[in-house]
Amino acid sequence: MEKFTRNQRVAAITKTLIENPNKIINLNKFTNVFNAAKSTISEDLVVIKDTLNKLDIGRIDTISGAAGGIKYVCNISKEDSRKFAEKLCIILKNRDRIIPGNFLYVTDIVFDPQIIHTAGKILASAFITKDIDYVITVETKGIPLAYEVARMLGVQLVLARRETKITEGSTLSINYVSGSSGRIQNMSLSKKSLNRNSNCIFIDDFMKAGGTAMGIIDLLKEFESQLIGIGVLIDNLETPRKLIHDYVSIVDFKGVDENGESLLFPSKLFK
Amino acid sequence: MEKFTRNQRVAAITKTLIENPNKIINLNKFTNVFNAAKSTISEDLVVIKDTLNKLDIGRIDTISGAAGGIKYVCNISKEDSRKFAEKLCIILKNRDRIIPGNFLYVTDIVFDPQIIHTAGKILASAFITKDIDYVITVETKGIPLAYEVARMLGVQLVLARRETKITEGSTLSINYVSGSSGRIQNMSLSKKSLNRNSNCIFIDDFMKAGGTAMGIIDLLKEFESQLIGIGVLIDNLETPRKLIHDYVSIVDFKGVDENGESLLFPSKLFK
Repeated sequence: MEKFTRNQRVAAITKTLIENPNKIINLNKFTNVFNAAKSTISEDLVVIKDTLNKLDIGRIDTISGAAGGIKYVCNISKEDSRKFAEKLCIILKNRDRIIPGNFLYVTDIVFDPQIIHTAGKILASAFITKDIDYVITVETKGIPLAYEVARMLGVQLVLARRETKITEGSTLSINYVSGSSGRIQNMSLSKKSLNRNSNCIFIDDFMKAGGTAMGIIDLLKEFESQLIGIGVLIDNLETPRKLIHDYVSIVDFKGVDENGESLLFPSKLFK
Repeated sequence: MEKFTRNQRVAAITKTLIENPNKIINLNKFTNVFNAAKSTISEDLVVIKDTLNKLDIGRIDTISGAAGGIKYVCNISKEDSRKFAEKLCIILKNRDRIIPGNFLYVTDIVFDPQIIHTAGKILASAFITKDIDYVITVETKGIPLAYEVARMLGVQLVLARRETKITEGSTLSINYVSGSSGRIQNMSLSKKSLNRNSNCIFIDDFMKAGGTAMGIIDLLKEFESQLIGIGVLIDNLETPRKLIHDYVSIVDFKGVDENGESLLFPSKLFK
């Protein structure tokens, strides 16, 4: 069996941990791969722990017991988060993004893996202390962000659909009122997709009046489950009276001013 | 400024590289953070390179020139890929997954970050040698997988929509014939979403007759762009005559037999 130096083990263990956020990994996995004693691996882990702490880029938790092991818990420093939000505001302020109806074109942003990876880390860090079973989103543009948050939290992503599909099996469907347009809308969830009595967070790209979030709360009630947090990439503060008050956002959008400039600011999360 | 040991630098550099697949990172980033000479960082990188090579879990490429640096290129060994495909077949064979019409319920799979992360790594590794500008998918269930592949390849994800939306700006829309149902369907893409003359790969959850892939080829032609590869999670071999012949899949689905058992096999990619 090949021998590995401490440096090499540290590199390989770091890779495994970072690729499996919030997932408990048994130390035996590493003692087997590296043909090393548990005490040796524990010393390797001290190096990784210290490095993450020193740079404020996450932490390694030790879970004791038979099903125990270690896990990587993501984090991003307040300073890096704020810098990211400021950079995102600059990108979003580009005048070419204003489309008829004073909408902001964000499709490229919500499907840009580099941006969404960091945004996902920021939102996951905001909910990391909570006991979460699922991340839920509604199609379509919030899916990559919700996926990243679910990945960082080590939980399953659940998708509410706008229409029922034959490939979903039995579904549970609700009507809700869109807070901004006042129109009745529909969303549905496969009966197989969620266990009863689950704690969920809702992640989406945009928050307007919060009608969709209210719909998600109603939908989850049908599964005897609770919404315990909401996170969005962009909070549209132009829409007055919000139906929902308790949520986390990365960027605040306050509409387009008389000079045709988008008013965008890092959210209060970074104050 | 704080001092870092080689072990600590190796841990931190590994984390940065793994979090930014296929993205060139200038060595100055590391010399600044660690207050270390370029030669020191280069020695750290040798450790990481050797480790990835030894374990066959990717590689570090050096790019010379003014815009040069290093980048992590993902890979997964043939053995690990095959094991993953075998495990996925077992999960998919669960009889509860067969829903009316002999469809396979896969919604939980395509939104499971742990499964999709590995599946994305397998498909990205299959296309890593090609010069790719965009990953394209069509809503909805292929989005997480396409996102992971785009992330691993370090490129933008582009989403074709089933309906045009006001938040997409000007769109280009085509009709295509679904290969399995024979019905006319529509898909559209925002004019802003793609540069002319781009190389794209199409990633989706399921491949049936290939009508959607044919539609994507037509849609890309409207953008003077080319489809240079196709990758799917599950290839439905039940549908006879395929419109598309050149693609990569992870699992083959051959329908449900007379005993009500799903016929599922690792694809020829792992032979």
